[in-house]
Amino acid sequence: MTYPWPDEGTPIDAISTPMPVIDEDRLAANILRAQSYLDGHGKAFRPHIKTHKIPAIARQQLQAGAIGINCQKVSEAEVFADAGFDDILITYNILGAAKLSRLKALNARIGQLSVVADSAATIAGLAGTFNAERPLSILVECDTGGKRCGVQAPEAVLELAEKIVAAPGLHFKGILTYPAPGGAEKVESFIRETMALLAEKGIDCPVRSSGGSPDFFSAHLVPSATEHRAGTYVYNDRSMLRAGHCTAGDLAMHVLATVVSKPTADRAVLDSGSKALTSDLLGFSDYGLIEGYEGAKIISLSEEHAVVDLSGCVSGRPEIGDVVKVVPNHTCVVSNLFDRMVFHRNGIVTRVEDVAARGTVW
Amino acid sequence: MTYPWPDEGTPIDAISTPMPVIDEDRLAANILRAQSYLDGHGKAFRPHIKTHKIPAIARQQLQAGAIGINCQKVSEAEVFADAGFDDILITYNILGAAKLSRLKALNARIGQLSVVADSAATIAGLAGTFNAERPLSILVECDTGGKRCGVQAPEAVLELAEKIVAAPGLHFKGILTYPAPGGAEKVESFIRETMALLAEKGIDCPVRSSGGSPDFFSAHLVPSATEHRAGTYVYNDRSMLRAGHCTAGDLAMHVLATVVSKPTADRAVLDSGSKALTSDLLGFSDYGLIEGYEGAKIISLSEEHAVVDLSGCVSGRPEIGDVVKVVPNHTCVVSNLFDRMVFHRNGIVTRVEDVAARGTVW
Repeated sequence: MTYPWPDEGTPIDAISTPMPVIDEDRLAANILRAQSYLDGHGKAFRPHIKTHKIPAIARQQLQAGAIGINCQKVSEAEVFADAGFDDILITYNILGAAKLSRLKALNARIGQLSVVADSAATIAGLAGTFNAERPLSILVECDTGGKRCGVQAPEAVLELAEKIVAAPGLHFKGILTYPAPGGAEKVESFIRETMALLAEKGIDCPVRSSGGSPDFFSAHLVPSATEHRAGTYVYNDRSMLRAGHCTAGDLAMHVLATVVSKPTADRAVLDSGSKALTSDLLGFSDYGLIEGYEGAKIISLSEEHAVVDLSGCVSGRPEIGDVVKVVPNHTCVVSNLFDRMVFHRNGIVTRVEDVAARGTVW
Repeated sequence: MTYPWPDEGTPIDAISTPMPVIDEDRLAANILRAQSYLDGHGKAFRPHIKTHKIPAIARQQLQAGAIGINCQKVSEAEVFADAGFDDILITYNILGAAKLSRLKALNARIGQLSVVADSAATIAGLAGTFNAERPLSILVECDTGGKRCGVQAPEAVLELAEKIVAAPGLHFKGILTYPAPGGAEKVESFIRETMALLAEKGIDCPVRSSGGSPDFFSAHLVPSATEHRAGTYVYNDRSMLRAGHCTAGDLAMHVLATVVSKPTADRAVLDSGSKALTSDLLGFSDYGLIEGYEGAKIISLSEEHAVVDLSGCVSGRPEIGDVVKVVPNHTCVVSNLFDRMVFHRNGIVTRVEDVAARGTVW
């Protein structure tokens, strides 16, 4: 038996839980607001598809004015290339013969493919794979305080840029960073210093890409950046709400959950466990926000259960069988758990989309 | 393009990362060891399929002597019924017309279907769905300290058991608990008190089901329990290792990951992020154990990156391009992220199985 995905026109109240649902109007408004802001500051917008993994949403993002998309894996980029996307940046160090071979095939069939590199080892692999007939564009990834990937100093960018310039199959396109929250000043100075070093050597650096949803509306504080990348802004989530990046009215994703047990007056159990919400805390001490039940706290998750402490409830308490709407801490990882995503407008289903790039394994 | 899943005979070193792999010999040994222990104590074993979601593994569990399987969702049970499984316990309060209707259809087509209930509301829904022609078996779920679902006292079991006995479509089969770790004594006394109360009213309670992997080898400390349920034991993971339930040689699941960046001497970045390992901490302060690199600590995950602090490394440090084996904190949630699972013996692929009950949405 297969799950009967809801038809257009079905009320979301009739959907079996746990299930995330996306509000069409909020989704559209999030896309427009972000694009308008970057348009107003003369920056290109390259949305990250990791949040939704759905070609139809990426099309909405392009229609609003995005210049292309950002993927995190070769396999995600393949899905979007299959769906017709022609300008893709993979913000990842691609290593190993199997992935490099797929990357080469992908580069041969879309208009603009770019990847990042932050080491001589990554560049050596890319240089050995691509040739002058169909070169690959490379951005050097810089660590401007995010403490994930990226070279540590502008001098190291220059060193790698020279290796890229020297490789017949590679094209140096610019630099990229995923900054720490609040890191605008550091990003700006890193970019400026790097551009000065590159200019001294006559190396052009047309693209300076920064990113992140948490600091989205501070992108104008990095005037030297030419493009911004962000994913979460499209749905928003509890972490975005806390960051002040959105209001409650901009939360496009809710996870519908049913109260399946109420063992004590102060404890309710929902069917949205870690296999629906994930255990991502992102700095919170609890696992999501239950709309309409102020003070209710999801204190623990097991795989298919969420235990809710009701003792702090300000007004009503949910009863067994009630369906509640949970705002997840982190929307991108929820998308990654479901094969299809249900959309609605004012609680009436509008469409069901395949989460097409979910489950692509590398 | 689709991912080229490895053929039988492929070395696991050739698999693109991040990817979990299952050691056949350890899997088989885990199944036998657990079954032998429960056999030796005269208890029935009902493995929970949530960990693997793969019918072929459940078949290995039945062949070793398990009496049936345990599912957590109607949709999981449907997948296993389709695969020929005939004795299924769903340890969940099933609520709502849509799920009840599917539960009824499932009950009509397999030999033994049981569910749990811990409230009058759940029993009312079940009683209104099933009839004497094809009754459904019910276990009353008890909270013996796990503080998730379950009635709080033996008197409450009696109250619900009487409702079940009074419903023509329901059959009272016994009681069930998912105890807190170390809770054997409390479970035993809860079962004894409950059985005494039920006996006074002439209600038979043939099944007393306890469960859990963390306390698996303490099941004999609950002599009144007739069956034990457990899932994680089949693969084991870092939390089982910490609990002393297994040794490093019993860890059947590893997540293969590649070092994709080494921005500083003390920081490596793996491609196994929260979309491969999940953010489950289960009491740990880091996100998995990297075999062969004692002292390396996975200090943070983003979706496709794991940041490793190498400063505490006792001996060697991994280099860019190296493939490492990560023992996940929690195996069950890793299974839930991948559509297929790769098995190997001594590093050579033996089979690739669909994670058939993954992505079933209710």
